[in-house]
Amino acid sequence: MSLFMLTSTRFSSEPRSSDLLAATLRHRRERLAAQIDVPVLLWSGRSSARNFPANVYAYRANSHFLYFAGLPLYNAAIRLASGRLELFMDDATPAYILWHGDSPQRDQIAQTIGADAAYPLSHLESLDAEFATIPVQDAATRQWQSQVRQRSLPSTLQDWDLALAKAIVELRLSHDEAAIAEIRKAVATTVEAHRAGMAATPKAQWEAQIRAAMEQVIMADQMTCAYSSIVTVQGEVLHSDRYSNAIEPQDLLLADVGAEAESGWAADVTRTWAVSGKFSPTQRDIYDLVLSAHDQCIEKARPGVEYRDLHLLAAQVIAAGLTDLGILRGHAEDLVEQDAHALFFPHGIGHLLGLDVHDMEDLGDLAGYAAGRSRSDRFGLGYLRLDRPLQAGMAVTIEPGFYQVPALLNDPQRRARYQDLVNWERLAQFSDVRGIRIEDDLLITATGNEVLTAALPTQAEAIEQMVA
Amino acid sequence: MSLFMLTSTRFSSEPRSSDLLAATLRHRRERLAAQIDVPVLLWSGRSSARNFPANVYAYRANSHFLYFAGLPLYNAAIRLASGRLELFMDDATPAYILWHGDSPQRDQIAQTIGADAAYPLSHLESLDAEFATIPVQDAATRQWQSQVRQRSLPSTLQDWDLALAKAIVELRLSHDEAAIAEIRKAVATTVEAHRAGMAATPKAQWEAQIRAAMEQVIMADQMTCAYSSIVTVQGEVLHSDRYSNAIEPQDLLLADVGAEAESGWAADVTRTWAVSGKFSPTQRDIYDLVLSAHDQCIEKARPGVEYRDLHLLAAQVIAAGLTDLGILRGHAEDLVEQDAHALFFPHGIGHLLGLDVHDMEDLGDLAGYAAGRSRSDRFGLGYLRLDRPLQAGMAVTIEPGFYQVPALLNDPQRRARYQDLVNWERLAQFSDVRGIRIEDDLLITATGNEVLTAALPTQAEAIEQMVA
Repeated sequence: MSLFMLTSTRFSSEPRSSDLLAATLRHRRERLAAQIDVPVLLWSGRSSARNFPANVYAYRANSHFLYFAGLPLYNAAIRLASGRLELFMDDATPAYILWHGDSPQRDQIAQTIGADAAYPLSHLESLDAEFATIPVQDAATRQWQSQVRQRSLPSTLQDWDLALAKAIVELRLSHDEAAIAEIRKAVATTVEAHRAGMAATPKAQWEAQIRAAMEQVIMADQMTCAYSSIVTVQGEVLHSDRYSNAIEPQDLLLADVGAEAESGWAADVTRTWAVSGKFSPTQRDIYDLVLSAHDQCIEKARPGVEYRDLHLLAAQVIAAGLTDLGILRGHAEDLVEQDAHALFFPHGIGHLLGLDVHDMEDLGDLAGYAAGRSRSDRFGLGYLRLDRPLQAGMAVTIEPGFYQVPALLNDPQRRARYQDLVNWERLAQFSDVRGIRIEDDLLITATGNEVLTAALPTQAEAIEQMVA
Repeated sequence: MSLFMLTSTRFSSEPRSSDLLAATLRHRRERLAAQIDVPVLLWSGRSSARNFPANVYAYRANSHFLYFAGLPLYNAAIRLASGRLELFMDDATPAYILWHGDSPQRDQIAQTIGADAAYPLSHLESLDAEFATIPVQDAATRQWQSQVRQRSLPSTLQDWDLALAKAIVELRLSHDEAAIAEIRKAVATTVEAHRAGMAATPKAQWEAQIRAAMEQVIMADQMTCAYSSIVTVQGEVLHSDRYSNAIEPQDLLLADVGAEAESGWAADVTRTWAVSGKFSPTQRDIYDLVLSAHDQCIEKARPGVEYRDLHLLAAQVIAAGLTDLGILRGHAEDLVEQDAHALFFPHGIGHLLGLDVHDMEDLGDLAGYAAGRSRSDRFGLGYLRLDRPLQAGMAVTIEPGFYQVPALLNDPQRRARYQDLVNWERLAQFSDVRGIRIEDDLLITATGNEVLTAALPTQAEAIEQMVA
């Protein structure tokens, strides 16, 4: 992999964007300095080996590093102290250049990102061991972090590291203009990928072909997938990563695919369409219900609104709609209180979106849950990844769904508990609806929200037209 | 990811292929048992995290595990002792099934692979700590291996582990029929990927679009890339992993792209074509020279021939050809002895191919180099990955090339050393040849070899036709 993942061409041809980058990074670290007064060391990380050391997975720089360093540097570190930025990385060796080509030098990169000083990596060893840091994902770099710290990093964040994590959450919860611009790029490519998936469906025989048509768009745009794509006729498998099913005309195809820009910022979009191009009446009924939950949540999303309340709103809309369809029996509020909605909508309404598709999930629930809050024990709430009031600059997904998961619906305990609340015979008439999810990316604005993914239609008729 | 990466459908519909699998695995472990009499424990490994723990890279099972277990099981282990096979894995939990779908049960898998017994993972802890093993790539599983061993795995293989590695090398050097059948599948898809890359070139504006067209084929066939694709107009960057260059009509496009079957077996193919569809006279001269080296090596490859001699043959052909073209001065043999060929052909002629694209490279040079041999210090030989006599059943690549690497050609020391051997003015006339490589996959047969990748032409005219 390259020491430096952006090309030097792109760089030198856009001097003004580089000034913008340096200004953005300065603003971010000044905000950090206002919150924490110990020095901060952040590592970019290194590649992880696949089947042998030289055969590595595509490198991904650590997100906290990316936020403050701006570029996906390989095997680098930065030190942030009192608003100053210091860069630590080695210049490419001749052997490296032979195999991987020339890369910008440390000093050139330092200038691009507006670093106040730049040193070789070995300089890290001579620094004061008292600093705050966040562990990266690759084991070799984590070990190196411990070494520079002169003691092991504990498995849960403590002391200064915890204070740093909280300060970073505070910053990263609301995106600045530079971040939003990058998310928009990832969204634009993601929208095209979904269009390509729909267009490829009539000629596809199995899921892998539709996945390939979608990811091709992402690759061709010099982006990568922000997460393992879900492209399946088994929409009820919530995190399916198999693509081997044959697709049949009566199937629904659920595609949850999102691009990640070279800068690391992500999009996360799901659409569900009929393989035949035309929803059956039962598929259409459920689709419209999920869409109604989706639309009503988006309608309500604005600063100050509790995200948890959007989840409960979606649960309520789905419970009421399933009652109207004769699948559930009772009052929507009672049904939600008994988690009956979660039989068919077992996950949360969405999550934070940013440099990570589940933004800052490496920090556990520190970002997702407001101080003093923690996950619910309730089946219908426990999978909620975000429980905070919305605020301007936040990017979140809204992704209600309906699924018939055999493991849930055939579970004897649940079956007994919900025996009278579910009309099982009526439900059987909806057997051609295995899984539907509709997911968009929202930017919370000062007065409401902007659907960043609005260029990709959600209405059933529009979806049908794109497949046909 | 799934506990079990093959679909159960594929499974049950092909009972006979499952019998075949069990028979193949039995044969492999009986051969192993003939060479080593300590129990062997092999782990499949687990996923590596990308930017946060739940966002993982696509899982790849350890190759040694795959060789003896036959299936890309997730988080499993096998014990091989006296020809017996024992499987260790946990059945999917209800929470797992909710998110990832149903998976075959341990007992079903045990039957498929012909295991003599099957246990939950916890059973590993109760085994005798005296066993041979090979460390996997992911850190969490490596730690677990140490734990079951009741001591750290040393950083270099020792004692029983070294004996096991040598025994495995002995087995994996020559492929059995089942392995060859899988390599053929990977080759077939790879050939189609290259055709797609050539076909996509006339409309492509930058490298990423051609890469996307090629990898789409691999993905659509439910395979993965065996290694990070090289698709570049900068062919002189030997392991380039950037795809951001614009492509221009006068450029050559070098594509080194290979598929890996679901079973793990790999293909590895390089073609170089003219973006315009038509090689310039200088490009054509060098292309034909590289092709001549390629053809002459393949002509000679048969059991008993030293692979190193094929490397030297290619070096000789290239040196002689560059002399004929007026780029080098002197006798080919002298030039090769002085490593003058390596100015333009700095890498080895190829490597072993199997479950790893550089087969068994996780064992260092244990597989690549015959006992008692080690890497040369010579610039023109030191990058050779394979130095053994060829034997029937071996799969190797043949991949000569010509490159103008600025880091080599502008290096003052080399420039001085080769001042009189290179006609620098003549070389300047070939400035439109940045990098050419032609790589095929060979199976060594009893009497010669079979070019597994023969369906993809190498002749310049044929290549031109495929782009046009």
